[in-house]
Amino acid sequence: MKVTKDEARRLAITLLEERNAVSTHAALQAEVLVEAELKGHPSHGLQRLPRILTRIERGLADPRTEGVATWRSSAFLEVDGLRGLGPVVAVAALRRIAERAASSGVAVAGIRNSNHIGMLAHYVEHLASKGQIGLAMSSSEALVHPYRGARALLGTNPVAIAVPTAGRPMVVDLATGLVSMGKIHHHAANGLPIPVGWARDETGMPTIDASAAMKGSLAPFGDAKGYALGLAVELLVASIAGSAFAPNIRGTLDSEAVCNKGDVLIAIDVGSQPELLARCSAYLDLVRTSQPADHTHPVTIPGDGASARRDRALSDGFEVAPRLWDELNALSLLSKSLVKGHGQ
Amino acid sequence: MKVTKDEARRLAITLLEERNAVSTHAALQAEVLVEAELKGHPSHGLQRLPRILTRIERGLADPRTEGVATWRSSAFLEVDGLRGLGPVVAVAALRRIAERAASSGVAVAGIRNSNHIGMLAHYVEHLASKGQIGLAMSSSEALVHPYRGARALLGTNPVAIAVPTAGRPMVVDLATGLVSMGKIHHHAANGLPIPVGWARDETGMPTIDASAAMKGSLAPFGDAKGYALGLAVELLVASIAGSAFAPNIRGTLDSEAVCNKGDVLIAIDVGSQPELLARCSAYLDLVRTSQPADHTHPVTIPGDGASARRDRALSDGFEVAPRLWDELNALSLLSKSLVKGHGQ
Repeated sequence: MKVTKDEARRLAITLLEERNAVSTHAALQAEVLVEAELKGHPSHGLQRLPRILTRIERGLADPRTEGVATWRSSAFLEVDGLRGLGPVVAVAALRRIAERAASSGVAVAGIRNSNHIGMLAHYVEHLASKGQIGLAMSSSEALVHPYRGARALLGTNPVAIAVPTAGRPMVVDLATGLVSMGKIHHHAANGLPIPVGWARDETGMPTIDASAAMKGSLAPFGDAKGYALGLAVELLVASIAGSAFAPNIRGTLDSEAVCNKGDVLIAIDVGSQPELLARCSAYLDLVRTSQPADHTHPVTIPGDGASARRDRALSDGFEVAPRLWDELNALSLLSKSLVKGHGQ
Repeated sequence: MKVTKDEARRLAITLLEERNAVSTHAALQAEVLVEAELKGHPSHGLQRLPRILTRIERGLADPRTEGVATWRSSAFLEVDGLRGLGPVVAVAALRRIAERAASSGVAVAGIRNSNHIGMLAHYVEHLASKGQIGLAMSSSEALVHPYRGARALLGTNPVAIAVPTAGRPMVVDLATGLVSMGKIHHHAANGLPIPVGWARDETGMPTIDASAAMKGSLAPFGDAKGYALGLAVELLVASIAGSAFAPNIRGTLDSEAVCNKGDVLIAIDVGSQPELLARCSAYLDLVRTSQPADHTHPVTIPGDGASARRDRALSDGFEVAPRLWDELNALSLLSKSLVKGHGQ
C-alpha cells in the first residue's frame, strides 16, 4: 500500500508521544525513520518502530532525555545518552559540534549509552547541507566475520561521509559488511538461496542457505580492505565513544538489552568557499556524465539514487507492507482503548 | 641483494644532502622510504628516490622548506607546502596538530603544494604510538574508474587509520583502488596477464593485458562501496586541503610537473585510558586467534604482517634489486665526480 510522508510521520509521532516522548523527540525519531522510507531504505524505516516502542515500554529507551554532553576538551564532546532515543541524542550532539566546529574548524562527538540512530546518512547530510563536512561511524552487534575468518566478530560498522557542493551535498553511507542482515532475512522469508560468498553458517562453513546464514556471519565487503576498514571503525568507535566491542554489544536489534554500541560524529568546517563548492560540483558532474562500462547503466554518484527516490516518494508516497501498517496502527494506545471499548 | 636499514638510510640521506636537503629533511625523507622497504612495500620504497632527486634538481621539490602552516581556526591547520618534500611538510604539520589535539581533543591539517608523502601508515602510526588516534588521506592522479564506469577519474585515494592499543597500534592503510598501478607495471614487466576485473584499457574495455591496463584504468576495490569511499576521499581531500581533483592532478608520479595533490591529517586525543587500551588489545587478540575459514591461513590483524616483516628486515636486511642499488649509487654526485675523475 502507498503511504504519504505526512501519514507516516503523524502515525510515528503519535505512537511515540503515547509513550511519553517529548514532542520534539518524537518528531526527530519519526523523521529519521520516514526519511529512510522516502530514500528507499525500508530496512531502516518504519519496520524498526515496533521495537523502538517496546524498548520505551520496557525502560530500555528513554524518550524524554537527550543525554548529557560534556566538553572533555574544547573540541571533543563526550556524550552519555542516558538511554535516550538514538536520533534525539545524536541530533543534540550534532548541533553542539557543528556550532563548535564553526569556530574551531573541527569537532568530534563520542556517544555511548544511546539507542540505534538509524541511517547515518541523515546526520552527515544535515551537516553538509549547512556547509560543513560530516563524518559518522557506528558500532553494532557482531555480524561480520574477519577476512579469512569464520566467526561473527565485527559489527556491520557503517561509515557515512557528506561533503558540501554547489548543489546537493554528496552523501556516502556504507556498511562494512558485504550485505545487510536485513537482506539475508528477506531471502530467508522468501525461501531464496543467497549467492556464494555472502555468508557463513554457525559452524563457520560457507553457505547459500539464508536461514543458516542468519545464525552465522556475513562477509566483509571488499575482502581484506573492507575488513581492515571495518576493524578500524570498530576500534575508532570504541575508543572515541567508550562503548563496547561487537562481541559484547546488545540492544540495537533486540528488545531485551540496554544498548551499549557507540556512535562517532565529526564536523569539519572549511569556511564558505563558493569556488571550492563549484569545483566539487563540476567534478561530480564530470564523473556522472563519464563513459559507462555498459551504456544501459550510467555512472552514478552515491546519494543520487536516494535523492531521486525521495523526490518521487514525496509526490507519490511510498510502499509500506499492509501488515506493517496495520501492526503500527494497532500499536496506538488510542486504537487499543477503542478496541477494548468495543469489546466491553 | 640484501641491504641493511642503515646502508639504505645512509645512501638516501647522502643523495638528498648532495642536493641541498637540510639534514633533518633528508633524514625524514629517507626514513619514510626505508620504512616502506622494511615493511615489505618496495613500491613506496627506494625505487621512488631517483624521481624525488630529479624533482629536486628541477626545482619541483624544495628540500629546504617545511612549508608554511597557518591556524585558520583553533584546530584547523592550513598548510602550503611550498613544494617541500612530502614527508618533511607532513611531519611538521603532524607535530602541530598532535600538540593542538592534546588540548582541543581533535585537530586537522589540510596540506597542498607538497610532494608525495609515501606510505600513509607511517604518519598515523607515529600518532598512535604517542597515544593519539590518527587518520590520513591523500589524493592522486586519476587512475581508478568509477563503479560501472570506464574512465580513470578517481585517484587511488588511500586512507590510513591508526588506533592506540596496550601493545602495538593497530594500523590500517588501504588504497581505494582494487590493486596498485605498481602491481600492473610488475605484471607488464614480467609479461604476465592480469586477472579479469582488475582493469580496463584506454578505450574503457575490460582487459587482461597489463600493458593495455597501464594506459587505462584500475577498478575500485569492493565495487560500489569502495567506489563510494574513494569518491568521498576525493572530495574530502580537495575540500580540506584546497587541492586539485584527480583528472587535474600531476606531479606524484612524474618528474615534469609541480605536485598539486592534497593530504589530510587528523589527530584525535581521547586521553590516557589504560583500561580502554587493554580492551582494544583484548579484542584484537580475540579476532587474531579466532577460527579461520581455512586452517592454513590464520586470521590476521592489519599491520601484523608489516610489523613481522619489519622485525625480520631489521635483523636480516631486505632485498633490493641490484640494478636499483647500482642506479642509486651512481646518482651520488660524489661517485659521479669520482667517475669523472677516473675518466679524465
